[in-house]
Parts: sequence; C-alpha cells; structure tokens
Amino acid sequence: MSTQPPPGIAPGPWPHRVRLVEVGPRDGLQNEATPLSPATRARFALALAAAGLTDIEVGAFVRPDRVPQMAGTEEVLELLAQATEAKAPGTREARFIVLVPNAKGLERALAAMAKNVAVFTAVSETFNQKNIGMGVDESFAVIEPVVKQARAEGLWVRGYLSTVFGCPYEGPIDAVRAAAVATRLWGLGIDEISLGDTIGVATPAGVGGVLGQIGARIPREQIALHMHDTRGTALVNVMAGLLLGIRAFDSSAAGLGGCPFAPGATGNAATEDLVFFLHGLGIQTGVDVRKLVEAGAAIEEQLGRPLPGHVYQAWRRSPAISEMFRR
Amino acid sequence: MSTQPPPGIAPGPWPHRVRLVEVGPRDGLQNEATPLSPATRARFALALAAAGLTDIEVGAFVRPDRVPQMAGTEEVLELLAQATEAKAPGTREARFIVLVPNAKGLERALAAMAKNVAVFTAVSETFNQKNIGMGVDESFAVIEPVVKQARAEGLWVRGYLSTVFGCPYEGPIDAVRAAAVATRLWGLGIDEISLGDTIGVATPAGVGGVLGQIGARIPREQIALHMHDTRGTALVNVMAGLLLGIRAFDSSAAGLGGCPFAPGATGNAATEDLVFFLHGLGIQTGVDVRKLVEAGAAIEEQLGRPLPGHVYQAWRRSPAISEMFRR
Repeated sequence: MSTQPPPGIAPGPWPHRVRLVEVGPRDGLQNEATPLSPATRARFALALAAAGLTDIEVGAFVRPDRVPQMAGTEEVLELLAQATEAKAPGTREARFIVLVPNAKGLERALAAMAKNVAVFTAVSETFNQKNIGMGVDESFAVIEPVVKQARAEGLWVRGYLSTVFGCPYEGPIDAVRAAAVATRLWGLGIDEISLGDTIGVATPAGVGGVLGQIGARIPREQIALHMHDTRGTALVNVMAGLLLGIRAFDSSAAGLGGCPFAPGATGNAATEDLVFFLHGLGIQTGVDVRKLVEAGAAIEEQLGRPLPGHVYQAWRRSPAISEMFRR
Repeated sequence: MSTQPPPGIAPGPWPHRVRLVEVGPRDGLQNEATPLSPATRARFALALAAAGLTDIEVGAFVRPDRVPQMAGTEEVLELLAQATEAKAPGTREARFIVLVPNAKGLERALAAMAKNVAVFTAVSETFNQKNIGMGVDESFAVIEPVVKQARAEGLWVRGYLSTVFGCPYEGPIDAVRAAAVATRLWGLGIDEISLGDTIGVATPAGVGGVLGQIGARIPREQIALHMHDTRGTALVNVMAGLLLGIRAFDSSAAGLGGCPFAPGATGNAATEDLVFFLHGLGIQTGVDVRKLVEAGAAIEEQLGRPLPGHVYQAWRRSPAISEMFRR
C-alpha cells in the first residue's frame, strides 16, 4: 500500500542559493562550559566571515554574572567594527547580530553601535518560565517595546522562537499553537523569524505541519529554520524546509553549543554539515568549508573538548579524503 | 532564481511501512575493537528480534585468525536455531543473515544450516584490492559460483556493493560506473542488492543519480540503501531513497561499527535514528525503539565505549524526554 508524501515533503521550486545564519559565536559559545575572551570571540567571528558566512550572531547583551560566556560583547562589537573599517575579508558583506533579551539589553546594544539585534521567546509556557522566569504573555510584553524601539532606531531585527516542535517539559507542541505564537511574534514587526527545534525532536512531517499552519501569514523568505541534530534529523528537516520554500537556515560552526536550560538538548546543526549537504545538491552557500573547519579547530583548541560536527570531525580525521569530496 | 529539485528528491508514492535490515551484530561488531563471545552476539541478535527487527545480519564465515570478532559464527547460528525452536519473541518472523566471502565461507554456512547469506564486492577497483586483495573482475569470479550454489541450495541471497557513491582512494564514483557494477551484481541472480555509501559521502543528488542510472534494470523493491552517517547525511539520503521508491534500508543498532579498511569511515546509520525519523513521518517499521535502546545498552557495556547513535544517546541521557516523544 502507498499514499502521497505528507506535507513536509511536497516539492516546490528549488533554490540556487540559500542563506546560512551562523550562531556559533553566540548560541554555540554561550552553551559551552569554558568562557572565551572577547578578543578570541571576535577573531572567531572574523574567521567565519572570511570563510564566506554573511550572517553571524556574535554576542548577547545579557547579565555577565549569569552568562560569563557572553561578557564583554561590547568589546566584540568594537573589534568587529575596527576589522570592518580595516576591510578584513568578508566583513563588508557581513551582518553581525547580537541578542537582546530586554530593554536594558537593547540600551547596551545601541550604545555599542549594534546594527542588528535578535529578541527571543518560546511557544511553551513552561519552557519560558524555566528559561527566562516569565510566561509567554509576559515575555511578549517585554519584547514588544524592544522591537518597536529597535525598528525606530533603524536596526534590523530577528526574532527567535524556541520549542516550536517540542518542549522538554510539555512534550510535543501542537502545530496550530506553534503557528499562532510564530504569527504573533512576526506581528511585532521583525525582519526575520527563526523557528527553533530546541531539543531536536522535529521530523519533516512536523516541519511541514508548522509551515502549513503558518500558511501565508508570514512570507516564506522571512522564515529561517533553526534545527538541532540531537536525534540526527537536522539535515532531513532542512531538506523538508527547502522543499517548502524556506531559504534561510541557522547553524553552528563545528556543531558548537546546545541549550543549558533544556535537558538533553545538545546538538546545534553543524554549519559544515549543512554546507556539505547543500553544495552536494547544487545549492550554493558562499562558504568555503575548509576555512570553516580551520575556524572551528582554533576554537576547539581553546575549549579543550572535541567539537561534534560530522563533517568537521571527518575533516579533522581524514583531511585527504575530505579534500577529494570538497564541493 | 529557482529551478526544479534534482532527481534525488522528486516524490513518488509514499509507503506505509519499510523494511529495516539490521547489521549491528555483524557489520557493527566486526568493526569494533573488542571481540564479543558467540553467546553474547546471539543474545544481542535475539534482543533485536524481540525489538521487532525482521532482517538481522548475525555473523560472517571469514577467517577467525583475521577477524576474531566473527569467530564462532557457527555457534551463533546454533543458538539462534535453538531460540527459534523455543519460540523466542520475534524469531519466527526473523531472517538471520550471514556473510560469506567465498566458496569456503558458503561451505561453512551450509554446514551451519544458514538459510540466508550475503556476498560482497565494491565498485572501486582500488578499494576491492585493499579490502579483499583482488580486483572487481576477480571478485566477481569468486562470488558468481557462490551465488549459483547458494541459490541451488535454496538459500536467500543478498549482495552488498561498497563504495557506490565514493571511494577513500579513488574519490567520487561516477554514477554510470556504479550502476553498471550494481546491475552486474544483480545479474548473478541475488534476491536483494544493498548499495553502500561506505565512507558516508553521498547526498540526495548522488542517491538520485545512481538510482536514475540503474533505472528499471533492477526492481526498486529489491534494492536496499546502506548509508553511513559520517557526514551527517544518512537520514537525508534515506529520505531521497523513500522519495524514489526504495523500501529497504540497512542500519546498525546504536550506530555500532564502521569500516576498518576505509580510513575515516566511522558511522553506520543508527537504527534508532531511522526508526525515529520514519515513525515521525508516519511510516511503520515494526520496531520498538525502547527495546532497541536496551539491546544497544547491553552491548555498550560489553564493549566499554559509548555508542554513537543520536537517538540512542539522547535516550540514554534523557529517558523521560525520549519517552514523551516515542512514536
């Protein structure tokens, strides 16, 4: 017996190029045990820009006593501005993004001359409570004026939505509910929404379900997918997204990071894995995977633990074979 | 700009169920450093049958001095026959398969009352030379009489083809060449051919390319895909196979094994990952993933190294979350 494929895999037109949003220097490093200096983090972001990444999340204006990994984000931005001024490779094309949880964060971002900011909330009430100590409505009350002011200041604004496909406390998330919160976040006036599979439980059917429920309420070209590879499904969900018209995907160099507030939520999708997969399909990203691996290797040395990305590890173990299959 | 998706992802009808061929007790354990006793290997195979797996590769009639991990395969088969006689769960439905490299191997398999055997060769001349000390033509001269005799004895015969998508020595493999060797192997009169991505370099475009070149020369229902997750692409290649009418996939419990003759070729696709992904798409496998994880955990203890499967690791780390998302 057979039937038609579920919504997650009905093919639309196929892109020549997609946009990767690199989250390693923020989402990645924030979730590593070892804090790195602002200078090291800025060097990492510059190496990523030199590898061809155009959208790079570089820091967060959060409390340094609570999140020491992001301390000195002002200095990171200052170093990046200097490098851009000096025409360091890739910096002219790069969009450097910083996370701002609230008005205080935005104030610091503006003082540091940030041009691109990101706000965040989650679909799950319980996850929001455990992660940021407030419910979904309260969280919207906090970020709405932040988005408004950021827009008024001419900033580009991204909105992260967590636990879109599942929550470590509440379990599976209903697609209608996820789509409603996504549309509400989009309605604040952000430039791009990133739908996060925070604990890596989505499959293509779930991706298709949420995008189907969102329908035409958010333009496809302003939705990014932020997949985790916790259960090995990151790329297959990216493929579902591609088939459904998504053209932007979040990933983390060498698979850096995870989410400390979500038990078992290791496994950001690794940028090298996306690049290998996309280039193999004839879809361009502009990224030089060898330079990307070198950028990751320098960070691995600083962190002192092996980084988990598949292609990254294969490259480190077998550079000659990897070179033969470089695309 | 956009175009149509490449051949690898044009959707055909969608199955309600697929067949998983479990290779953990042979391909998996053969490539682990620690040899396990025949009794332990038989217990493992029985646990996999009890978890719902119907096709299980349980041993190899190779030289025990060269491959100590497979020593005593006769005893494994004897223990499985006893358990089947005693109506152990799943054994009546199970097809237990043993690998036979040559006439001597088949002789031992017949003496041990094996009912299902597998032969193997590779597309790559160099890989065959390094792996089995002979070229492709020589290899066919060895396995042709083996297949003939096995068929004459009424055995079910599977043929493995390695390096279908790439070779660690020769690099990318041309799809026309891969399809030609596949068709030749199929032409020996085997019941099923398993196309192997030995070093994990395939992407959906490659899967579509090879299947496209094979065309109607081999019936889709007698082709299995044997993907490695070395570069994170196992599931996305399985999805390409699904879209192109493939209904059988090889995988290894907990991601056991790799290939010792192929440098850098870690990463059999993990059975739990396939089950999570397929069930998430509404495609049945008959497998109880919790029982499968328990079977893997018992082997992990014996091997003394953490096994790499994504879903397996997530389950071991966060059983409560995994239970919420069990399908």
